[in-house]
Amino acid sequence: MDPDSIGVGMLGYGFMGKAHSRAFREAAVLSPPLAPELVSISGRSAENVEAARREYGWPEATTDWREQVLDPRIGLFDNGGPNDLHAEPTIEAVRNGKHVLCEKPLGRTADEALAIWAEAERAGVVHMCGFNYRFVPAVRLAREILEAGDLGDLYHFRARYLQSWGIDAAPSWRFEREAAGSGALGDLGAHIVDIGRYLVGEPVAVTAVARTFIEGHEVDDNFAATVEFDNGVVGTLEASRLARGHINQNTFEVNGSRGAIAFDVERLNELQVADERWFRRILVTEPEHPFMRFWWPPGHIVGWGDTFTHEVHHLLSAIAGEHAVAPHGATFEDAYRCAEVCDAILRSAESGRRETIDYRGASG
Amino acid sequence: MDPDSIGVGMLGYGFMGKAHSRAFREAAVLSPPLAPELVSISGRSAENVEAARREYGWPEATTDWREQVLDPRIGLFDNGGPNDLHAEPTIEAVRNGKHVLCEKPLGRTADEALAIWAEAERAGVVHMCGFNYRFVPAVRLAREILEAGDLGDLYHFRARYLQSWGIDAAPSWRFEREAAGSGALGDLGAHIVDIGRYLVGEPVAVTAVARTFIEGHEVDDNFAATVEFDNGVVGTLEASRLARGHINQNTFEVNGSRGAIAFDVERLNELQVADERWFRRILVTEPEHPFMRFWWPPGHIVGWGDTFTHEVHHLLSAIAGEHAVAPHGATFEDAYRCAEVCDAILRSAESGRRETIDYRGASG
Amino acid sequence: MDPDSIGVGMLGYGFMGKAHSRAFREAAVLSPPLAPELVSISGRSAENVEAARREYGWPEATTDWREQVLDPRIGLFDNGGPNDLHAEPTIEAVRNGKHVLCEKPLGRTADEALAIWAEAERAGVVHMCGFNYRFVPAVRLAREILEAGDLGDLYHFRARYLQSWGIDAAPSWRFEREAAGSGALGDLGAHIVDIGRYLVGEPVAVTAVARTFIEGHEVDDNFAATVEFDNGVVGTLEASRLARGHINQNTFEVNGSRGAIAFDVERLNELQVADERWFRRILVTEPEHPFMRFWWPPGHIVGWGDTFTHEVHHLLSAIAGEHAVAPHGATFEDAYRCAEVCDAILRSAESGRRETIDYRGASG
Amino acid sequence: MDPDSIGVGMLGYGFMGKAHSRAFREAAVLSPPLAPELVSISGRSAENVEAARREYGWPEATTDWREQVLDPRIGLFDNGGPNDLHAEPTIEAVRNGKHVLCEKPLGRTADEALAIWAEAERAGVVHMCGFNYRFVPAVRLAREILEAGDLGDLYHFRARYLQSWGIDAAPSWRFEREAAGSGALGDLGAHIVDIGRYLVGEPVAVTAVARTFIEGHEVDDNFAATVEFDNGVVGTLEASRLARGHINQNTFEVNGSRGAIAFDVERLNELQVADERWFRRILVTEPEHPFMRFWWPPGHIVGWGDTFTHEVHHLLSAIAGEHAVAPHGATFEDAYRCAEVCDAILRSAESGRRETIDYRGASG
Repeated sequence: MDPDSIGVGMLGYGFMGKAHSRAFREAAVLSPPLAPELVSISGRSAENVEAARREYGWPEATTDWREQVLDPRIGLFDNGGPNDLHAEPTIEAVRNGKHVLCEKPLGRTADEALAIWAEAERAGVVHMCGFNYRFVPAVRLAREILEAGDLGDLYHFRARYLQSWGIDAAPSWRFEREAAGSGALGDLGAHIVDIGRYLVGEPVAVTAVARTFIEGHEVDDNFAATVEFDNGVVGTLEASRLARGHINQNTFEVNGSRGAIAFDVERLNELQVADERWFRRILVTEPEHPFMRFWWPPGHIVGWGDTFTHEVHHLLSAIAGEHAVAPHGATFEDAYRCAEVCDAILRSAESGRRETIDYRGASG
Repeated sequence: MDPDSIGVGMLGYGFMGKAHSRAFREAAVLSPPLAPELVSISGRSAENVEAARREYGWPEATTDWREQVLDPRIGLFDNGGPNDLHAEPTIEAVRNGKHVLCEKPLGRTADEALAIWAEAERAGVVHMCGFNYRFVPAVRLAREILEAGDLGDLYHFRARYLQSWGIDAAPSWRFEREAAGSGALGDLGAHIVDIGRYLVGEPVAVTAVARTFIEGHEVDDNFAATVEFDNGVVGTLEASRLARGHINQNTFEVNGSRGAIAFDVERLNELQVADERWFRRILVTEPEHPFMRFWWPPGHIVGWGDTFTHEVHHLLSAIAGEHAVAPHGATFEDAYRCAEVCDAILRSAESGRRETIDYRGASG
Repeated sequence: MDPDSIGVGMLGYGFMGKAHSRAFREAAVLSPPLAPELVSISGRSAENVEAARREYGWPEATTDWREQVLDPRIGLFDNGGPNDLHAEPTIEAVRNGKHVLCEKPLGRTADEALAIWAEAERAGVVHMCGFNYRFVPAVRLAREILEAGDLGDLYHFRARYLQSWGIDAAPSWRFEREAAGSGALGDLGAHIVDIGRYLVGEPVAVTAVARTFIEGHEVDDNFAATVEFDNGVVGTLEASRLARGHINQNTFEVNGSRGAIAFDVERLNELQVADERWFRRILVTEPEHPFMRFWWPPGHIVGWGDTFTHEVHHLLSAIAGEHAVAPHGATFEDAYRCAEVCDAILRSAESGRRETIDYRGASG
Repeated sequence: MDPDSIGVGMLGYGFMGKAHSRAFREAAVLSPPLAPELVSISGRSAENVEAARREYGWPEATTDWREQVLDPRIGLFDNGGPNDLHAEPTIEAVRNGKHVLCEKPLGRTADEALAIWAEAERAGVVHMCGFNYRFVPAVRLAREILEAGDLGDLYHFRARYLQSWGIDAAPSWRFEREAAGSGALGDLGAHIVDIGRYLVGEPVAVTAVARTFIEGHEVDDNFAATVEFDNGVVGTLEASRLARGHINQNTFEVNGSRGAIAFDVERLNELQVADERWFRRILVTEPEHPFMRFWWPPGHIVGWGDTFTHEVHHLLSAIAGEHAVAPHGATFEDAYRCAEVCDAILRSAESGRRETIDYRGASG
């Protein structure tokens, strides 16, 4: 194998399998410091995984991820399987010295996420969790604006992630407690918690309500929460799979003493930036904007799938030693901390109390 | 005095004094069943009240509201004074048999609001609280859509009222606890609580955080809350005087199983209405739309001030016996119930607990 | 009669009769230097004009405008009648020394408009044409921005005025050539031509197409044109009564070397202002914004009807000698020049040639 | 070579070289009926073409396109070079039996485009011109809506393509008459002319103005035109490289008797669709929407670059005999007809007359 390349094995052939496969293919031509070599894809059903192999362009397919975590050709294990298949394969991969990319939520609970993170730390591998919205150019630009202090003292953060497919959905593991852990919370809420952590600060307390409206669902169809950050910022978090009018509204806003920023993933290439008075709509496609060196002249937008290309390129650069995964990528520690916030939201929804969040270390 | 007219006395010459004066003048030509006759305006400062008298077109000015509540020419007492001057003059007015319009918040606390409501009930007068956003054509249309059941089962309500003037504001009674009772909560939050009650149902529990960020302020600069309604709807409420990027964003959204509606007061004449998939932008200026018989051909928008004209016209019709104040106007009972929700928000912000709301009756 | 007041007589009780009546009532309390005293309203139908008298609050009604132009109590004659009743009454009014406000289009042709203007000039009275969109705060702000040179060298102006009621409309004088002169052109196009003249410069040439799509209509249902201004600016003009999707979209944009501005009357209180890159949405309700001294705190919008209040206040101030009608109000000269542009558009639509515009003087 | 594959040679390594290379790579995994095999890329500069070869993933590079048009491994010649290099290489390619994809504008004039089309017809190869906006899902959906007759009788089409980079641009072949043919017209205007032809009908006449504002530019910086279609539709066309506030606004609207559609490429995934009254914002990402079988669950947007993937996939299917290039792809005949419209716009801008358009056939 080429010393400047790394073999990739992937678990999962669903939505994320497709998105990640495309991302590796695309990142490969963006001059990454380490070239990804696709090795194998795994999944439960032999028929489906073979179909995915052909469709997504993998040389080999297997129904046994254990082969992958032992495969010496594989240097990077990409776990895009369902939530209840995040822990064991990821842990086995790191124990075998593989670098790892795992889809979010890392674990179904903070405890599970902590265990995965601890193993990865122990193994000393590079680990990243698939919070792809960090790799939206407009979100990275928001981070740059916040780091520069342009917004002054921060007061508020509000975010919501609203979809509506849950109203008429066919049965799915996504509605089962054992398989999914939680519902709108882990699926959608985790994204906005991560964005809050990436942009604003560390959540320290929440109050929340959660509801299961649809008969047959075992997990939350929605939740609504207040959130307090370590730097005094307060705000709201909300996610729903039952919000008619919205297909995929993933939106946040930060208000500070000197300005504000606002974003919606349905308009992925736009960032609204306010000075002390008015919002300006910035089309985040200028040469100086994040990730735009990979793309087109100004005004030609990127798509949602391209965020995974950025994510994979970032991970390959991190493995090559060019930079750490953090702060722009979410490490397993970030994913664990996100899980602590999600757990606190569920606790508060049950207890009716403001729940504070105690973050633990990887060493226990 | 004309048997088909009613004398009006007003307390207050600030923002609300101006808005109400204009509303009486405008409502007078919209063929109200009872014609308003302006009698007198009162206020603390002799100089200012005289200036207001001239500017707003009142025949007489006085520094003593007690004259007004005893004035036999006055049949309707309109209290647009500061929050700490709502209770006593309003109570004295109803005790003297005047019908009353009082600005919101009715009282600085639920107890104070309850006392005012109880006195008005005892006196048997017509009473209305100035929740003028009920008289926005788009909000009334939202109510009609909800009453018709077009949205199916209701799941979510989210509302926020965001301004930013509080960051650089000069000292004002609005930041003092004794005079104002609360800050963003009573000033802005009361409006969205009332809208929630008007459109969705009765709040039964809240969790909340509130903050005073600006030195020297005694009241909340912002709050964020979750809210549960008696019909199972859950959502978020938020208000701030420190939200850069927003001048006067008073926005709400309701999501049901078959559709959704969304509104923002900065685009007062628009209602976004979703079916099971997409939002349509309705310009609420068609002949069949609420209040539009008073105005222009389609596409010619009304202003914020015109909502008071609708409000006053509604009140005059109610006094004339054409309909009750409720449900389209907010009675003092509505205002009291709103105050209970606001009190619960403050209690929860202090206790860190989910606070349930017990509504009391006017007789005790 | 009070030496600081002026008697007003109005012709017309339709849409404009209502809007102007309200404007005089409202302007009266905005401390105008000359107080308007309503004297009489006239119209063809005795029954309708009496109903309008009562509804709009005029002391007297008459079916003969000739009484009004001779009435010594009347100092200002306001002509809000149909287009074919603009010339004769307005000319008789100025011959009798009345100041005049006439709705647009001033004449059905440039020749007719020229004749009216010439008579008004000869009479030495104050004359204004009802181009009320000049009195939208956002449009005045656009003018201020352009006067300050903030946009650098100007390149483009594009404007369109799109309605859709013409598709299903009942028969009306508005579709008849004799009564209306033209269709979408004089009704809607005149407004955007006037805005172009107010903001950008003097049109010197046009090319155009016009169409009558609907059977039974004698006038243009729509037109589309290119326009060249004396300062080199080029652009497009378009108006239609058949543009589904639009109720009253009156929109323009100006692009210069250093920025741009954009406006739509359906969002009357907003001005989009671009620097060299991005548009900012300005809510034109700040204390320093045009006309806002008359109104509310920031973020509380004005309505379409309020533009007439500004217009009437401006006219009263001009009659009182505080300033000229121009440049912020449209004089009859402005209205005549606008008519020359409209005539050139029709000529070009017929000839298929670029038509240049020769402006004549009032003295012939 | 695999009988189910086709060898591809590309000319050009600039913006289009990058976009097309990515499109072939992506289309290859979307199960095309004919698999593209990249053979070689050509360009003037040996150094640059070698860099492009590596970056875009081509096996071979050459500075002589004549090698490519003679290369037996190449079945499809993709011409993404500058405008003055469209005619000769494309003609040589078709003479050698290659299928061809050529970037727009096909020729610098209608005569040149006609010659290219005639040669391709004579050669009997599959030919397509790179009007990639036909492959935006929202634009295809617009076509489907129009084909279904949902908009009733069509009245208006208006389109504009506004950029602003031309104000401060460095010297480029794009501003030279010999190399570019025209400026904003061929670069941007050609796109909206093609969209008009794809959606509405055949243009039969135009009137126009064009300007060169910037010193040193030899071609039009902008144009504005009226347009008449064979089915009676009238409207406006406009393009500019000097329109501050816009980075890449490519927008159109169609109004009919029963509805309207509107689109802007800056919001590539949205189509505004009006019924007889209101616009609905459709996010064109549903499973039943055009091209969405290639992509993600609803609400996850595609990017501008992905339109080329659709375009290339369409071409490969056409070469494989699954369907004709037309109507959804633009043939060289479409490109020639578009050029006739562009020529007429320039003629009218010079003559000041309404210019009618006579379309010629490929056989002369």
